Amino acid sequence: MVNEQIVITDVGPRDGLQNQPIILDVGQRLQLIDAIADAGVSSIEVGSFVSPKAVPAMRGTEDVFAGLSKANGVRYTALIPNMKGYERAVAAGARAVTMVLYASDGMAKKNVNMSMLQADRVTADILTRARAEQIEVTAIIAVAFDCPFDGPTDPAVVRASTANFLSLGANQVVIADTIGAADPQQVRSLTADLVSDNGAARLGCHFHDTRAMGLANVFAAVESGVRRFEASIAGLGGCPFAPGASGNVATEDVVMMLEQMGFATGVDIKALLRASDIAEQLTGTALGGRAKPWLQKRMNKQAG
Amino acid sequence: MVNEQIVITDVGPRDGLQNQPIILDVGQRLQLIDAIADAGVSSIEVGSFVSPKAVPAMRGTEDVFAGLSKANGVRYTALIPNMKGYERAVAAGARAVTMVLYASDGMAKKNVNMSMLQADRVTADILTRARAEQIEVTAIIAVAFDCPFDGPTDPAVVRASTANFLSLGANQVVIADTIGAADPQQVRSLTADLVSDNGAARLGCHFHDTRAMGLANVFAAVESGVRRFEASIAGLGGCPFAPGASGNVATEDVVMMLEQMGFATGVDIKALLRASDIAEQLTGTALGGRAKPWLQKRMNKQAG
Repeated sequence: MVNEQIVITDVGPRDGLQNQPIILDVGQRLQLIDAIADAGVSSIEVGSFVSPKAVPAMRGTEDVFAGLSKANGVRYTALIPNMKGYERAVAAGARAVTMVLYASDGMAKKNVNMSMLQADRVTADILTRARAEQIEVTAIIAVAFDCPFDGPTDPAVVRASTANFLSLGANQVVIADTIGAADPQQVRSLTADLVSDNGAARLGCHFHDTRAMGLANVFAAVESGVRRFEASIAGLGGCPFAPGASGNVATEDVVMMLEQMGFATGVDIKALLRASDIAEQLTGTALGGRAKPWLQKRMNKQAG
Repeated sequence: MVNEQIVITDVGPRDGLQNQPIILDVGQRLQLIDAIADAGVSSIEVGSFVSPKAVPAMRGTEDVFAGLSKANGVRYTALIPNMKGYERAVAAGARAVTMVLYASDGMAKKNVNMSMLQADRVTADILTRARAEQIEVTAIIAVAFDCPFDGPTDPAVVRASTANFLSLGANQVVIADTIGAADPQQVRSLTADLVSDNGAARLGCHFHDTRAMGLANVFAAVESGVRRFEASIAGLGGCPFAPGASGNVATEDVVMMLEQMGFATGVDIKALLRASDIAEQLTGTALGGRAKPWLQKRMNKQAG
């Protein structure tokens, strides 16, 4: 599998920043996004079109889109909660949007005050319109392994939802371990079923490192044939008050592992570490992927 | 594979403590060993019979053996470098010893000033005597994936050495990623070959978390059928001046992952966290497995 490609979407500027105690202004958010793009990450979630009251950190995502470097071929996507969010995204110039599906009623209720099926219907409607308008759609299935309200997720629910939204024409369905509860055996089993059901081309995975199993879960999904992953620069995300304990799996860790395994991610790890430093400086939190101290040491050695 | 057993050897009191800047006295080392044993870890590397000049932290391993709780069925082992070490170990009451083999000449030269083959011969001689005296022998193959002096290790060397020492009657051969360089794909590939060559019953693995791939590598080996792992309480080991960057994979992380995957380790995770706290207090270093903050939160919730 030498040089087989893996596509990484960095969700730090959205999933990461919205969980930080410090709110960045548009210029700072663009600085971070540009640094990630400069490292060669070809897909970045740059914001969300939700209510600025509900998520103050994502205020001004229109201005973020206005300020993006457009010539570099990067796929910029934004999270949208509903049709109004979709319209705001398209008006702002987004050519790709991300929507959240739920694999439990408890999480759907808590997040959007709907049932799973109601949330599915909202997403299906947006998807129909987005296809007509040639806007790319990623559907994220939240709590695909475990839900803080409803407990362990039935894999059959995830399989049905994945098949459904792929058949409806979603460009990508991403299986998300939203609370970082999955172990690699569960991941291996579910992703093998999903690849067998649908092929791997439009499947992605999103892991958190809460229980330190982030990279193990990435590897398990790779073994099943998954070639798309979401990750967050510097491991941004999760609870900012327990550094290292939570957060998304760090982009630098995922890139390091996959490149060592012989995959082509297109990412320059040295430039990515600079983006990671910027994330730390801007958020005022010493984050960094788990492997960052080792990576820095290697870089210094190569420079010396 | 529900309830299938996995045997964990905690190497913290040896591999871990010898890399700490603070040297513990025999009473403190026994306190740590007893806490690990109390948590249900059935195999512990408690010291080494090397020159106290070379490794001051392991001075007095005879006294450690004299002070061990013997009634709990725990397998206590000690590292020995040569026949003199073997004799000291047996005289101290050890019924199990651990010896190091090398998968590169560079590492053999650096560590024991011998070639790989010379080191093999020393170990083979001790093994012959140990079998006659019914002393259990674990042979560790150091730098089984990558060597800081000779570069990437030829898997054929590891396969030949493993088959050789298993056929000579070693109770266990452990494949060690001494410098924490392996990725899970390499581990999956090499361990699959080793299990195919020799079966899994007497194979073990030893990983470091230098590049945050410790648990991914454990999972990869589990997928190949390996059911024996070495780990270190609180992730003790490696360089003490870069917490989180190096060190052995933490016993608490390994136990957490394997138990969640449905394996039986025999370990009480709550008691293991107490042992981890003791390791931190005694060494004066905030170590702890990577998943410790999450584990502690879960424990507090259960207690509340």
